[in-house]
Amino acid sequence: MKEKLYSIGEISRLANVSIKALRYYDKIDLFKPAYIDPDTNYRYYRDSQLYHLDLIKSLKYIGTPLEEIRLAQELDSEELLTFLEKQEKQVREKIDFLLNIEQSITNVKKGMQRQLEYPSLGEVYVVEEEEVRIIRMEAEGMEPESLFNASYSKLKMLIESTDGFTNTSYGAMFHFEHYANLKDISYMYLFSPVLSKNQISAVTPDFELTTIPKGKYICIAFHFSPENYLRNLQKLTKYVGDHQFQPISDIFEFFIPIHYSPKKQEEFRVEMRVRVAETGEEPKKN
Amino acid sequence: MKEKLYSIGEISRLANVSIKALRYYDKIDLFKPAYIDPDTNYRYYRDSQLYHLDLIKSLKYIGTPLEEIRLAQELDSEELLTFLEKQEKQVREKIDFLLNIEQSITNVKKGMQRQLEYPSLGEVYVVEEEEVRIIRMEAEGMEPESLFNASYSKLKMLIESTDGFTNTSYGAMFHFEHYANLKDISYMYLFSPVLSKNQISAVTPDFELTTIPKGKYICIAFHFSPENYLRNLQKLTKYVGDHQFQPISDIFEFFIPIHYSPKKQEEFRVEMRVRVAETGEEPKKN
Repeated sequence: MKEKLYSIGEISRLANVSIKALRYYDKIDLFKPAYIDPDTNYRYYRDSQLYHLDLIKSLKYIGTPLEEIRLAQELDSEELLTFLEKQEKQVREKIDFLLNIEQSITNVKKGMQRQLEYPSLGEVYVVEEEEVRIIRMEAEGMEPESLFNASYSKLKMLIESTDGFTNTSYGAMFHFEHYANLKDISYMYLFSPVLSKNQISAVTPDFELTTIPKGKYICIAFHFSPENYLRNLQKLTKYVGDHQFQPISDIFEFFIPIHYSPKKQEEFRVEMRVRVAETGEEPKKN
Repeated sequence: MKEKLYSIGEISRLANVSIKALRYYDKIDLFKPAYIDPDTNYRYYRDSQLYHLDLIKSLKYIGTPLEEIRLAQELDSEELLTFLEKQEKQVREKIDFLLNIEQSITNVKKGMQRQLEYPSLGEVYVVEEEEVRIIRMEAEGMEPESLFNASYSKLKMLIESTDGFTNTSYGAMFHFEHYANLKDISYMYLFSPVLSKNQISAVTPDFELTTIPKGKYICIAFHFSPENYLRNLQKLTKYVGDHQFQPISDIFEFFIPIHYSPKKQEEFRVEMRVRVAETGEEPKKN
């Protein structure tokens, strides 16, 4: 069989590789013309060389550096199979990384969506909540007045050890009772809702993986200020008492930034909720 | 509540962000100290600023450029939700892209594995094959002597329109009969095994999506040369006749490069197979 020769332009069209790339592949000895016309310096390629571009293009597509492609060309079939197994593993790692990010974004979005659909601030309401998985750590007696952004540092560190995409809301837990003063409140736990499966596997003995269970909750949300804090907490506990709900959990408090602008004064929304026993009959709302 | 101030070193430890990054964030107005000591030029940050780093770190992690992060800081809650939806969509596109590559690598590997586990060359054997999905195009009467690498250009173009990761093996189909001369063979179709779902959606009217069906096949594989080609083809057709198999398909021919080294002479393996009727009783092997 007499073999066809193609010009660089023909190869470019046949293989869908730019002339510029073909010239470069020649220069770096990746894909060289079979023949160069000594008079014109035109490059000519044999038809049977064409399949070499399959490997080059495939590996380039998955991000293999040209230098590594040149090494891959010299592999025998078994070695090439091992090479592809390695590539496949790397692709899978990238996929898992992105799946985790996707899951985290979805969960952060869910939390934000919930905030946006919130009933009016400063009003108690009753709602059926889904289970929320949380990671918590002991608050070691911290109080609202001593609770800082920095108090969450250890918890955030844990989460960041697996996930670079973090929560927009963090929380704290304290006993349900009627408080007369802010100083009477003592936090038992600080927590963060779980965003991804990776976070679950990272939990160390300093932390505890648990849930805010599915059930009926009495809730209130408000714009944070020290005065608002006590007033709204009292509104919540009074509502529970007035309506003879039976509280069966601690109070879960969520702290949510309203914006992230460094140009504006920081503003936070607080949401508090306490789980109550199901009664079969819903008490009337205020 | 009197607010804590932190030095840059303290913020670095609390938020797990390098001092170098914090200095840079200051310089580009992304995260600025609340106070700079006029005597020492030391930077101090308020505790309530700390949560700003949550957004910065999260978006940096998913690859958002710093300039875009600065814009995201000024978004209100609804806009931030829309922004995250966009990020989520981009992450999903990357995942789909990688899933397709993964599927392609897996299928190429499967084909290579099959070749490596092949019985000895030049010997006919009987095997139960799984269904193979293929994309085929009319060969317009091409013959073994006029079949070039370039003949597959159109088929490869179609595949590359969706997948950058391409096959290592391509094929051709011709009628099953006893051939006395190479010149008597006329190809009906050229084909490529389907590597990914994307390829299926790309099929245009010039091409046909079909299968090499699951079933019993009589096969032979050999090192390509024009002489080997006719001799092995005859061996295959003779075997089918001698053993009274009833051929129920065309001959499927696969062309597989043995290596991709530009330093060595090109070498190809050819595999031919024809499907035969199931008989309930397996004829004895030679």
